[in-house]
Amino acid sequence: MDPGPDNPRSFKMVLEYDGTEFCGWQVQPGMRTVQDEIEKAIHRITGETLRVTGAGRTDSGVHALGQVASFSIMNGIRDERFRTALNALLPLDVRVLQLREMPEPFNARKNAVSRTYRYVLTKRPLAVGRQYAWHPRLKYNLELMVAVSEALKGRHAWKAFSRSGDTDGDFISTVTDVRWTESSDAVWFEITAERFFHNMVRIILGTLFDVGRGRMPVEKFKELFESKDRMQAGTTLPPHGLFLVRVEYAPSKRRRS
Amino acid sequence: MDPGPDNPRSFKMVLEYDGTEFCGWQVQPGMRTVQDEIEKAIHRITGETLRVTGAGRTDSGVHALGQVASFSIMNGIRDERFRTALNALLPLDVRVLQLREMPEPFNARKNAVSRTYRYVLTKRPLAVGRQYAWHPRLKYNLELMVAVSEALKGRHAWKAFSRSGDTDGDFISTVTDVRWTESSDAVWFEITAERFFHNMVRIILGTLFDVGRGRMPVEKFKELFESKDRMQAGTTLPPHGLFLVRVEYAPSKRRRS
Repeated sequence: MDPGPDNPRSFKMVLEYDGTEFCGWQVQPGMRTVQDEIEKAIHRITGETLRVTGAGRTDSGVHALGQVASFSIMNGIRDERFRTALNALLPLDVRVLQLREMPEPFNARKNAVSRTYRYVLTKRPLAVGRQYAWHPRLKYNLELMVAVSEALKGRHAWKAFSRSGDTDGDFISTVTDVRWTESSDAVWFEITAERFFHNMVRIILGTLFDVGRGRMPVEKFKELFESKDRMQAGTTLPPHGLFLVRVEYAPSKRRRS
Repeated sequence: MDPGPDNPRSFKMVLEYDGTEFCGWQVQPGMRTVQDEIEKAIHRITGETLRVTGAGRTDSGVHALGQVASFSIMNGIRDERFRTALNALLPLDVRVLQLREMPEPFNARKNAVSRTYRYVLTKRPLAVGRQYAWHPRLKYNLELMVAVSEALKGRHAWKAFSRSGDTDGDFISTVTDVRWTESSDAVWFEITAERFFHNMVRIILGTLFDVGRGRMPVEKFKELFESKDRMQAGTTLPPHGLFLVRVEYAPSKRRRS
């Protein structure tokens, strides 16, 4: 489909947001959500009513450094002017980092090949930056958590690590990478997978904590995939330590040819 | 003076706070201030009404990573238990990092030999962490700012770089160090001096910006000390990019003997 005056223009947008004051990504009546703020800002610029699709439906309180969203408009505004206008209209806790028209229809959710999330743990309670990290009060064995987290890699059914009540689909996803980074005052846990289920990263880390605190044997952790039982896994850690870091896409067919 | 049941116990406390929701350090009627929160928390623990002295009277919106404060109490509570109780009572945007009883009377303001402040500039507008940095919208020549900032070092009268209306004292202070650190997304300006006057760091950096944007010749910058005229210097930058990083003290006489 060639872009033309009668064809919709498809856009890819990269977003950063501070989740503290948002009830998550997805539009909910009466709630302040990121999706709603973006749809309202685009509407003010173009006059068009539309739906923006996000690659990851982040929960209330979860932040994003590189959320990707897509939408289509008829309006002919230039990309750079459009981005500037959006940032002028959007509240300061959402910024559009990149915005560009795609040569072919683009769907931020369906076309994504991987997502990367980060969970930030601090080694002491913080005042400055407390809204961007979680401080575990109890002691834990980080080396044991790092070692057992190797079992997360690969293709698994993640039902035990998904919010109870969720029943859709097979819960199958492949984790391609797990990385830990330690600094003098924080520990970063980063995980990359094809797709994530509801609360998955926060439950994974809550369960790793149970291992690190000696409340769950390493063998039991490895059996959780088979159990498919949310009750067997650990608690869901608080949202404010979690960041959607980036979303990756396959190179476009058009650009490869 | 030996500590004893009838002698007050002198304490040194190191504090971190997020200045966003505070009207600065100093108690003001009807305002939320850091000093007031700390005095209230100590009162709840000890029953004593007292005044806490801060090494730096940070303005509304300015943060601290290592503010030092002092106070005296009669109560015999142990240091570590006292610190835990304070952190339990204090709001989450103030944390007591260290608390210890001093072997001799200690005054956080009078005994300080230097203070270090940091101002954080970001290279793009941030959503995450926007309350801890300032983003200059206009372009500037950082190399020129770094070069001219060498002129800040040494003993000067800082009247031109202090809030207009302030008249107390001679405005004399020695700047012992100026450091710049550049990363992929931010620039840190750090300055260490014996003492700082009202708004001094924010005015210094606002004036360096005038040089960096070509609005003030380098020669004029160097003449500002002699002018002693606040109107000749640049604007006061916003408070939320500023941090009181640390306060240093001479080794105690008792410990040196």
